[in-house]
Amino acid sequence: MPHSKASKNLAAARREQLLSDLKALGNKTYEDLEQSKFPEFLFPSRSVSNIVYDPKLKQYILDKVNVKRSAGNIKHIRPFTQMLWLAYFADKLVRQGKTSTLRDAYYSSQADAMEFVDQSESDEIITDLETVLSRAREEFKIYPEERSAIFGDLTIEYTVPRFEGRRLNLSSHPDGYLIGPSLSTAEFVDTSAEMVIAVEKGGIFTRFVEEQVEKKYKAILIDTSGQAPRSTRYMLKRLNKELNLPVFVMTDGDVYGEHIAMVVISGSANAAHLRDLTVPTAKWIGVWASDIVKYKLPTDPMTETDIKRAQELKKDPRYHGGVWQRELDIFLKIKRKSELEAFSKFGLTFIVDRYLKEKMDEATTL
Amino acid sequence: MPHSKASKNLAAARREQLLSDLKALGNKTYEDLEQSKFPEFLFPSRSVSNIVYDPKLKQYILDKVNVKRSAGNIKHIRPFTQMLWLAYFADKLVRQGKTSTLRDAYYSSQADAMEFVDQSESDEIITDLETVLSRAREEFKIYPEERSAIFGDLTIEYTVPRFEGRRLNLSSHPDGYLIGPSLSTAEFVDTSAEMVIAVEKGGIFTRFVEEQVEKKYKAILIDTSGQAPRSTRYMLKRLNKELNLPVFVMTDGDVYGEHIAMVVISGSANAAHLRDLTVPTAKWIGVWASDIVKYKLPTDPMTETDIKRAQELKKDPRYHGGVWQRELDIFLKIKRKSELEAFSKFGLTFIVDRYLKEKMDEATTL
Repeated sequence: MPHSKASKNLAAARREQLLSDLKALGNKTYEDLEQSKFPEFLFPSRSVSNIVYDPKLKQYILDKVNVKRSAGNIKHIRPFTQMLWLAYFADKLVRQGKTSTLRDAYYSSQADAMEFVDQSESDEIITDLETVLSRAREEFKIYPEERSAIFGDLTIEYTVPRFEGRRLNLSSHPDGYLIGPSLSTAEFVDTSAEMVIAVEKGGIFTRFVEEQVEKKYKAILIDTSGQAPRSTRYMLKRLNKELNLPVFVMTDGDVYGEHIAMVVISGSANAAHLRDLTVPTAKWIGVWASDIVKYKLPTDPMTETDIKRAQELKKDPRYHGGVWQRELDIFLKIKRKSELEAFSKFGLTFIVDRYLKEKMDEATTL
Repeated sequence: MPHSKASKNLAAARREQLLSDLKALGNKTYEDLEQSKFPEFLFPSRSVSNIVYDPKLKQYILDKVNVKRSAGNIKHIRPFTQMLWLAYFADKLVRQGKTSTLRDAYYSSQADAMEFVDQSESDEIITDLETVLSRAREEFKIYPEERSAIFGDLTIEYTVPRFEGRRLNLSSHPDGYLIGPSLSTAEFVDTSAEMVIAVEKGGIFTRFVEEQVEKKYKAILIDTSGQAPRSTRYMLKRLNKELNLPVFVMTDGDVYGEHIAMVVISGSANAAHLRDLTVPTAKWIGVWASDIVKYKLPTDPMTETDIKRAQELKKDPRYHGGVWQRELDIFLKIKRKSELEAFSKFGLTFIVDRYLKEKMDEATTL
């Protein structure tokens, strides 16, 4: 699948659109004031009662209830002003090509004598701005601390200031390249990959590189380091959407692993206000509860918490039917769980030579 | 400081020495058996009473008490056999150039019908083998999951099988290169760097790259991601020892930050059996308690736990005298703590343009 610059300039276009939306936000405030109206922000409510499951999008979304934040309401003046400041701060970050973190944004507010009682107050306003702009905070350069890694034949072109225009192929460092602000915003230039395989553990990621999985399967490998952080889900989404690569997710054989795969596919309830963090066509390729039985894996007993979690997930609409429901049922029946490393019982390369192979052979039937 | 291949072939030599030591361990067992003696392992005790502070090495070390593990003692047969198996497993990993994790080693034991009740039992034996070999488990290819990152003008040459002989310069990916098994074992080929600056947070690491700290200070940058994992301390040690680069550590302004710097410098008590994880000449360049006062940083109050921790550290011999004692005293006096991001109060680049500059100017006086 030779891929040629399909995604080139997408990042630049996204950036321009964001700056334009931020400007519109500011203009709207000026216009309201000129017309002697109290300026306001209107955006979907994120309260639990307004979070609904959309079977078509296969993710949680916000329903129709809106909240209004108006300078004409004395209770709203504080959050209204905070959000206006945050939009100004975001605009500055994007224009200057600088990155920030949630913690950093909180302290930066003090540079402009903008008051937040604590970081949780600024975090909340940042999520509000995400909702207003329908964009993850990573797009306006506020990044999380969590990091995960990528490896494979993918040539990228950076868009961040210092490295703008420079290209890099991500197959030279076998420990993996951190998925940080520069990689998240890079253009995809070229790849020979035909799929993406995400695993939840660094040790398995390293084993996959050692066993040349990226060559054998023409795959880009991703280490999610447990629950995939948003920047990683965003990267998976881009690889899927811009390069048309199918995505496979391999996790530990427990309900948390099953949920890690589900979050890659359909997002999380607390990101119901965002759209670019899901890969609805991604496939969970184990470790399934039925694999534990099939391969006679070493196991640990499920704890009370594990069992409760499985019962909760059974009620979640995303888990109705298919492999999701079936495997939850088997977990609850066998009451055992297992880990990816458990395959080492059969030797260090079994997980690649046998397990991954069998799963990929049957992947089309998932 | 043009550096030319000073460290070349060091990794290969270390590997040969390790294989030779492992072989000697096995030979010793055979010889004992041939002489009708019960084979045994003799190694320093890691019990608390045998951990002492060595002011010359500036780190905790194991004292003179030894433990004997003999096949002639029925209570010892199990751990003796386990350690023999582990040495065999380590030898296999090193010869095949494969990596493993603590978790993986535990499951791998089942491949050879070697019994461990749980992972904590195999972890313990792995630490025993570290003690016997006087080497960190990373040298025999058992790696932790934690990862940190590196960025700067350093050309390395891989020694791991798939990439052996290939070179990479670590200045092309601004998000940083993961410090995993491949990087830890790579040879250092060339660098223009004159120092190493380690920071405890990814956000600050990114800021430093954005502000070209690695150019301005001719520095290799390292993100320790909180308490530096052992593979990172090992990397810092190698950069210091093999390339003669001074190491500076920048942390949050609290007692935990002070201790992160101390662990880079003098190691931790539970690694008292190891020697290659400390950089005695490394300097802590803040955030000091006195910086909180000097720069009027935004602060949070110290909790009861913070205060208790500061009082504990005051009794630690490594904290006697100098900046260490002085700053603990100021923390206990002001009872406030601060974070690296707090400098954002003065604008996003203040931490580089002013704070780092002032600290580096006075660094020689530390």
